[in-house]
Amino acid sequence: MTSHRSSHSDHTHPTLPAPAPAPVPTPPPGTGDTERLARAALTRIVEPGDEQAGHALRTHDATTLLALLRDPREPPLPGTGTRRLAGWRHRARTTTTPEADLDHITRLGGRFLIPGDPDWPTQLDDLGDTRPIGLWTRGPAPLRTWALRSVALVGARACTPYGAHTAADLATGLSRHGWIVVSGAAYGIDGAAHRGALAAGGATAAVLASGVDTPYPRGHSGLLDRIAHQGILIGELPPGSHPTPSRFILRNRVIAALTRGTVVVEARHRSGSLVTARAATRLGRHTMGVPGPVTSALSAGVHELLRGGATLVTDADEIVELVGSIGDLAPARRGPVLPRDLLHPATAQVLEALPAHPPAPTTEIAHRAGTTPDDALARLYELHALGHAERDGDGWRLTNTGNPASNARRGGPCPGAYG
Amino acid sequence: MTSHRSSHSDHTHPTLPAPAPAPVPTPPPGTGDTERLARAALTRIVEPGDEQAGHALRTHDATTLLALLRDPREPPLPGTGTRRLAGWRHRARTTTTPEADLDHITRLGGRFLIPGDPDWPTQLDDLGDTRPIGLWTRGPAPLRTWALRSVALVGARACTPYGAHTAADLATGLSRHGWIVVSGAAYGIDGAAHRGALAAGGATAAVLASGVDTPYPRGHSGLLDRIAHQGILIGELPPGSHPTPSRFILRNRVIAALTRGTVVVEARHRSGSLVTARAATRLGRHTMGVPGPVTSALSAGVHELLRGGATLVTDADEIVELVGSIGDLAPARRGPVLPRDLLHPATAQVLEALPAHPPAPTTEIAHRAGTTPDDALARLYELHALGHAERDGDGWRLTNTGNPASNARRGGPCPGAYG
Repeated sequence: MTSHRSSHSDHTHPTLPAPAPAPVPTPPPGTGDTERLARAALTRIVEPGDEQAGHALRTHDATTLLALLRDPREPPLPGTGTRRLAGWRHRARTTTTPEADLDHITRLGGRFLIPGDPDWPTQLDDLGDTRPIGLWTRGPAPLRTWALRSVALVGARACTPYGAHTAADLATGLSRHGWIVVSGAAYGIDGAAHRGALAAGGATAAVLASGVDTPYPRGHSGLLDRIAHQGILIGELPPGSHPTPSRFILRNRVIAALTRGTVVVEARHRSGSLVTARAATRLGRHTMGVPGPVTSALSAGVHELLRGGATLVTDADEIVELVGSIGDLAPARRGPVLPRDLLHPATAQVLEALPAHPPAPTTEIAHRAGTTPDDALARLYELHALGHAERDGDGWRLTNTGNPASNARRGGPCPGAYG
Repeated sequence: MTSHRSSHSDHTHPTLPAPAPAPVPTPPPGTGDTERLARAALTRIVEPGDEQAGHALRTHDATTLLALLRDPREPPLPGTGTRRLAGWRHRARTTTTPEADLDHITRLGGRFLIPGDPDWPTQLDDLGDTRPIGLWTRGPAPLRTWALRSVALVGARACTPYGAHTAADLATGLSRHGWIVVSGAAYGIDGAAHRGALAAGGATAAVLASGVDTPYPRGHSGLLDRIAHQGILIGELPPGSHPTPSRFILRNRVIAALTRGTVVVEARHRSGSLVTARAATRLGRHTMGVPGPVTSALSAGVHELLRGGATLVTDADEIVELVGSIGDLAPARRGPVLPRDLLHPATAQVLEALPAHPPAPTTEIAHRAGTTPDDALARLYELHALGHAERDGDGWRLTNTGNPASNARRGGPCPGAYG
């Protein structure tokens, strides 16, 4: 996850083929949404994770900050270095209107999420001043609820067959447990993790250090396209942006913050995956490692992590046991908490299509709900995160807690949900 | 370490060829030593680790207990079950005088150590009522000082090449650091650990579940013979005894108690090595595990141990860092503490032969001290444990703390030793 190619935030758009627009739970932003426009513009001006920009956004809204940067007569921002400010001002003057970026992402079936949006993953607020200015996304998944039941699987690009096998195996197991696999789409462990989740008919999210329309690495174009259809691509950088070493490193904090825990599968000493793991620890997330032979340099970084206090895990059950134990973030353990009335109508339709038992395959539920299998799957994971749906073998059914079907369908809270 | 063959404590003596008697630091017991004779007899009557026998030995000395067992008119022992007592009484009446066993062990260059002997490893006192009644030993090593700087390396019999390689590698590394490798002489990890220590010209001790004259497993006869010459064989059972499943399990507590820490290299779930590791934890010793692939059933037991709180170690340095941190048991870290006057004359002679620098090989030191290389090595490890000697590459030299040569040779404490 630390490799890169030469970087410049050029603005050449479609390098991934645009999928047919997928249904999205909230409408695309209107042109009157000035705060969204200003934040979209700022993602072209400020590098991801810039603490001074984050600090400035605590005292100014994005619209004001953008205006300040565009007007050379404005005084310097307190707490921001002169050189950095000069760089921002230069970019602010040369950055054209962000409407084109927003139109472009909408045409790709994606969105630009900002803090305060119903689907903004509030977990990222733990990043404080390094919280992303906004998130460019592609794919049908409801990011906030997905993030509630997500685990990061990360590791070396040049992994061993053992590492690739283990990553795929863990991803498959997590999918079977209804957990979303988050990774960085790199070669090696990341790719094996995404593929393991997809192969199990599960859900996966890729957090990129590039624009979500700009596949990196190139060899993963097909994989990224599948994730954009069946899961979600997430990035802080606007369309057309390329990764840099520092963008890779800063991307890792988003992976760590978004998820309930980070599992490192294989990593050398001083690997970028260890950055993600340490960020997870700092953020109070679970940090886990998969051991390997002590004779393997690719397990040395993981063993270092485990000696430093990370939890040793050997299978998906052990991961779920650990990350599933945060009571307040795991509503599924206590039964449904979100009444049907608060669900998006399309999600409520998938809920209606869910059998009590026996479980039905995703395709059948999609057919009953009148949507595509990819869209149905995204909504099933949302319903799972909310405690309405559960996986059973390769199918899905209503959660079996007391008499949840009638409760969930009536829209009332389940017995015990608030008890 | 859990395999066995059919068991009966027959009394057929020499199944290992007797080596030329090696010099031993204390004289063999005289016939007037009734407590030693009684304890030797009790090792034929009571199974190792019998808590009720240990309890009886707290209120009676061994001579009295033996007399009680031999006299049918004596009342039952409080706290001892009727059937067990009947068994002891039967064995006590059929057990002839133990003088033959003591003569036999002396002829083999061995000893029968009992609590209170200068060379009794007082670490075993932590076992409470399951403390061995006595220890049958063969080999030139001073057991008590060796135990102060010893680590147990244990694991599966049917280990993988990875496990065998790792065990040998750790044993070599521990030897280079001047630590004594203790194991159970079984096939697999145990054998690899002993061989790794011997190959590095290091010291090793084998704790047996059989008599120290009765090689088990048969295929390790040569290895056990080498350990009897270059290290030490230790057992609770009298000469000629064969192992049983319960003897293997109970032997493990001695390995755990004798050493500063136990490292499990490979072990399946419910392996005997985990018994040793858990005994080490209960006794306040360090418990360590070497990770392996999560796909290997032979690492599953180790990973279980590590998830339960054992320390993950990947090389000898990490083991030494952990076990060497108990200040009061690691005098070598603070300089010599035992003045020369208290050393055995033969050990003092080896100290005289030690160069300040450059280091000399064991053979040269042995030649200068007028003894055999095996005997010199045993004494060098004793001097190492006491802080007088240190390894340097493949040789030995005086410890480099201030001006230790003169201090140690004069017999005075080093500056800072008591400061």
